[in-house]
Amino acid sequence: MGKMNDRPLILVTNDDGIEAKGFSELVHVAMEFGDVVAISAQVPMSGMSHAITIKVPLRVKLVEERPGLKKYLTNGTPVDGVKLAFNSLMEQKPHLLISGINHGSNSSSSILYSGTMAAAMEGAINHIPSVGFSLLDFDPEADFGPSCQVARDVIRMVMENGLPDGICLNVNIPAVPSGEIRGIRMCSQANGFWKEEFEKRTDPNGHEYYWLTGFFHNREPDGGGKGTDEWALKNHFVSVVPIQTDMTAYSLLEKMKTWELTGIKHEG
Amino acid sequence: MGKMNDRPLILVTNDDGIEAKGFSELVHVAMEFGDVVAISAQVPMSGMSHAITIKVPLRVKLVEERPGLKKYLTNGTPVDGVKLAFNSLMEQKPHLLISGINHGSNSSSSILYSGTMAAAMEGAINHIPSVGFSLLDFDPEADFGPSCQVARDVIRMVMENGLPDGICLNVNIPAVPSGEIRGIRMCSQANGFWKEEFEKRTDPNGHEYYWLTGFFHNREPDGGGKGTDEWALKNHFVSVVPIQTDMTAYSLLEKMKTWELTGIKHEG
Repeated sequence: MGKMNDRPLILVTNDDGIEAKGFSELVHVAMEFGDVVAISAQVPMSGMSHAITIKVPLRVKLVEERPGLKKYLTNGTPVDGVKLAFNSLMEQKPHLLISGINHGSNSSSSILYSGTMAAAMEGAINHIPSVGFSLLDFDPEADFGPSCQVARDVIRMVMENGLPDGICLNVNIPAVPSGEIRGIRMCSQANGFWKEEFEKRTDPNGHEYYWLTGFFHNREPDGGGKGTDEWALKNHFVSVVPIQTDMTAYSLLEKMKTWELTGIKHEG
Repeated sequence: MGKMNDRPLILVTNDDGIEAKGFSELVHVAMEFGDVVAISAQVPMSGMSHAITIKVPLRVKLVEERPGLKKYLTNGTPVDGVKLAFNSLMEQKPHLLISGINHGSNSSSSILYSGTMAAAMEGAINHIPSVGFSLLDFDPEADFGPSCQVARDVIRMVMENGLPDGICLNVNIPAVPSGEIRGIRMCSQANGFWKEEFEKRTDPNGHEYYWLTGFFHNREPDGGGKGTDEWALKNHFVSVVPIQTDMTAYSLLEKMKTWELTGIKHEG
């Protein structure tokens, strides 16, 4: 991006592919706030988590360029795209990274599988204030109007307050009309998990194979209570969870120092 | 696994592929402690993080069966393999999940990209005490003797003490002879990151492409001080970091509740 003006520089990415409606809408919101570099993959990368591409060469193609916007296509994962943008496509690091708007929830432990949130985490560990947005609606033609309004509010909030190094935001939006969104809640990650159901089939050659399907289980009663993202979403609030890339379980760390180890000398 | 006896049932997986020496050595260690189900991919899955396979069918093949061991091959990622084992291959959930021994470090923020540790995290969110092991040596023929001794100690420790729900262990082993390992340290995750360097090349058709390379940066002075995994490893200690799958940054959560939001009603 040339240094034509003093507008903030914003990197936009996603994991549903460059044709996704949620991506296109987020790019438009970002352009209200600054100059935008956008990068996405040809194909959806849902479930790619923090995967990086080591074994095949990465390709990048500039597919759209107009004042305030450069849009790139890549064969890489969402995290590859962020790395490429930081290292090869942008003359300077962006002031903000936003990812999404994802078609489908990334609340609770879904964050572990999410390419959308992995891109935001990649921003956070590179000192960039970063936010991932997800709408609880898998429909390719979902109404992103309320989500865009939420995105504007959160972007403004992050530009005003900044974010501590290594922490990004996981924003999920309930699939309800704008007037029915009851507000924005700061939440913790609910203690949920996906209960897998594999569908076992037999191919025309007689070999068995499996399709991964599954549905979400929330382990906490009442969705985990008022403090969790699952509870907020079920009650038509937007959930905002601050996510840290330091995954140390400090609660256990002190206790572990009393564990006895045999064989190899143990120093607490 | 049949219920022939009361031996613990242990699931072993990795992300370097079924032929990796570190996997084979860890399977042998596991067999000292219980009956083993092992699953791995045909090809290395390094850098696959918590990726799951949605778009192609998953295949599983039993490639070895003898008393105390069933070994499966899959085309899926490490996390797919764990999900398949829990849901389709094992008659009951295992008492322990161990992943590795990885060829190369998964300390500090490398955990975010690691298939080895994603498999352990998948165990943790499914209530299974889970540990990932990594040796700081990329050599396919690395000496895993000291690492196997560490694995025995840690497995014994986890079997005695258990692990809280949602927390697994990230164990990294320095690449030094057994006699030079100074002990085992309980650590926090160092504040490091990978500094990418993309190598830009031009293919025979004149198109540019990139290879992802990179090297690790530790941001903290002296490797982050005595408490971090990077410091421990540099000083020839084994590092054990408890890892939580709840990624909420509680430190920021309270502060965020004071942020003002415009546009949409904000309830803290």
